Amino acid sequence: MSSEGVIEGWVSNVKILGKIAFIEVIDGLNLSPITVVVRKDSGSVDWSKVSAVKLGSAIRVKGVYPEKVVSKKGREIHADEIEILAEPRDLPPIDVTGKTPASFEDYINYRYLALRLPRVRAAFLARSLIVNEIRSFFSERGFLEVHTPKIVKAGAEGGATLFEVDYFGVKAYLAQSPQLYKQMLMCGVPRVFEIGPFFRAEKFSTTRHLNESWGLDVEMGFIKGMEDVLEVLSQLVVHLSHKLNERLGDALRGLGYNVIKPVTSVRVLTYDEALEVLNSLGFNLKWGEDFDPKAEKSLGDYLEEKGVQAYFIVDYPWESKPFYIMKKDEKRGYAFDLDIRGIEVASGGQREHRYEVLRQNLLEKGLNPEDFSFYLEAFKYGMPPHGGFGLGIDRLVMTFLGVQNIRETVLFPRDRFRLVP
Amino acid sequence: MSSEGVIEGWVSNVKILGKIAFIEVIDGLNLSPITVVVRKDSGSVDWSKVSAVKLGSAIRVKGVYPEKVVSKKGREIHADEIEILAEPRDLPPIDVTGKTPASFEDYINYRYLALRLPRVRAAFLARSLIVNEIRSFFSERGFLEVHTPKIVKAGAEGGATLFEVDYFGVKAYLAQSPQLYKQMLMCGVPRVFEIGPFFRAEKFSTTRHLNESWGLDVEMGFIKGMEDVLEVLSQLVVHLSHKLNERLGDALRGLGYNVIKPVTSVRVLTYDEALEVLNSLGFNLKWGEDFDPKAEKSLGDYLEEKGVQAYFIVDYPWESKPFYIMKKDEKRGYAFDLDIRGIEVASGGQREHRYEVLRQNLLEKGLNPEDFSFYLEAFKYGMPPHGGFGLGIDRLVMTFLGVQNIRETVLFPRDRFRLVP
Repeated sequence: MSSEGVIEGWVSNVKILGKIAFIEVIDGLNLSPITVVVRKDSGSVDWSKVSAVKLGSAIRVKGVYPEKVVSKKGREIHADEIEILAEPRDLPPIDVTGKTPASFEDYINYRYLALRLPRVRAAFLARSLIVNEIRSFFSERGFLEVHTPKIVKAGAEGGATLFEVDYFGVKAYLAQSPQLYKQMLMCGVPRVFEIGPFFRAEKFSTTRHLNESWGLDVEMGFIKGMEDVLEVLSQLVVHLSHKLNERLGDALRGLGYNVIKPVTSVRVLTYDEALEVLNSLGFNLKWGEDFDPKAEKSLGDYLEEKGVQAYFIVDYPWESKPFYIMKKDEKRGYAFDLDIRGIEVASGGQREHRYEVLRQNLLEKGLNPEDFSFYLEAFKYGMPPHGGFGLGIDRLVMTFLGVQNIRETVLFPRDRFRLVP
Repeated sequence: MSSEGVIEGWVSNVKILGKIAFIEVIDGLNLSPITVVVRKDSGSVDWSKVSAVKLGSAIRVKGVYPEKVVSKKGREIHADEIEILAEPRDLPPIDVTGKTPASFEDYINYRYLALRLPRVRAAFLARSLIVNEIRSFFSERGFLEVHTPKIVKAGAEGGATLFEVDYFGVKAYLAQSPQLYKQMLMCGVPRVFEIGPFFRAEKFSTTRHLNESWGLDVEMGFIKGMEDVLEVLSQLVVHLSHKLNERLGDALRGLGYNVIKPVTSVRVLTYDEALEVLNSLGFNLKWGEDFDPKAEKSLGDYLEEKGVQAYFIVDYPWESKPFYIMKKDEKRGYAFDLDIRGIEVASGGQREHRYEVLRQNLLEKGLNPEDFSFYLEAFKYGMPPHGGFGLGIDRLVMTFLGVQNIRETVLFPRDRFRLVP
């Protein structure tokens, strides 16, 4: 049965063959254009208007969805009425037909235009889907969604990678992470999560770092050990990889993305095991050393060949981890990273919840407990054992889509050299 | 039928009557304590441990939920095993039994402890619920969830209320709102929403302003007029007020909150009508003047008496609104505010989408189009008619719960004098 309808979107192609016009329009949040068919003879649409439709215009079409679709692109509407809502005044700086690729920089500079191209659009549909699924995952499991401050007096890691803010004449910083706040909350609610931006003033210029990112932070009280945290994060990765495949897998693959396969379980390696694998691959790493991106990548490739795309590395040397990580023994901490396809996506662990030990940890890291007094205070009044993780949403989307540059997953990325748009 | 179970939480009261102990524990995300009953004779729990349980401790209890509950508080578990996970080392600065109220300041300074008190806890459960419902509302309606930058080169309003950030030696600002970015996106996707923090360096010290807040931003392309935006926001208010009442209404009222009634529709008043009402109430406002909080409050009280708790004020004088608002006539703009119970919660309107007119608007407001070139660029390539709104989540929660101070709805509020915790 044919039925009436309205579509709204941008003209991505126009072909006029004699007395028929085929206007391709990218409408709604679709990943392929709909073909608007107009017949000169039908008399319902002003033909002079149709033949003058400009590429890139915003239009509204009223018409009929035919019973049988002729166009190869799969969706079609036969126009009864066409309304031009806005025309480009200049030639678009990106080819909106998608035939001529633009530069990587222009896809960022003109992101709003690039979003009409199915490949770019698909990445942000995937991101929106993932964020939405993260939220329902935690809401359904009884986690309280919280918002912690982004302007803070002390950094979580006390490092030098903080952006300074002048807060009414007082020196403040942009939050590197909700770490201290989500831990403090463990003294009053059992489980929290937050989705929000975080800021790191690192002078990196890589394909996997940005200076402003969005993260998921999770903290769980009353845990029996780090395993409780691994279990939740593992379930999350399984859930998200399945949802992405189910909802957008085919479309993304059709657009050239090397999408992650549905993860059935997240492999667990100890730091010692990972070290052994790396050294067997020709690295010459000593116990205690952190893995650099090159080592992470090699380990990722090695495991991907074995069909493992997502894995935990657990029991890191305590020395390489932050003060709030609980020690497992003299050398190791209850700390883990989640790596996906050779890239670190999340890190977490069990936290030190005992006031005196935590204070001692700060001193061992060369930090001044005085600077953390507002945080330490929360550990005095019945702080239960707890643990959690921080996960980079940009990186998660990046590894799930199999793209090489984190900038493909962020609408308006911020790096050392990019503050506009 | 009785059944076995485990509860985890914090001790909020202990009563020992002879050979029976009643330990009240605030567990999970519950809004009232569960009573843990321990019988000395049962032999299953070490009585010396029970009689030494400290107020405020974090504990885990294994036991049996009895068929018939004896305690007046409604929930009860008979302990087989009690594990003390953490004891307070100092006397908690807030009375965890809830009998002696603490100061308003202490409820903020020790928010993590206050979260054990049902009244405080309930406000943040309500906030979490509202945020979650906002998201599913927009996801279900085909809006793309986006994340726009928080470190920016230009403020949306070009005003002096921006926090400065040193961005690798370049002067940058914290975003006042996603306004410019969400509008730019209207050139490539039809509908977006964002939930994120925003920052205003205003030197206000009031019960309804904070310098860091969370907001909902919505923008819709291809609209036929401002009515399309009013319709969506109106549906949102109806939906949220119903969900809050359905899920937490009774509990919140029981805890003393003056919860908003389920809204069936949002009343629409023109600015002129509002002005007339206010002047009939004894104000002496001239056309063109903005309504100050006192006027807003009076209008709110007047309408609440008539059973109207949520209302739009539309067709504001253009002069009092930002440059991006489309003019309706020589004096008025397609701009609206959403007020709830006398407090402005959201504002929005139809935007000027025509490049030349928008540029002219900037000049009329005394702004330099050069400073907005990255934004204006997006209006050159087929920008459809669009509109949207920004809504303060803190204020929405505040008005829905009927609390007088916005600080009751934010875990760790930021004002001129508060940067810690």
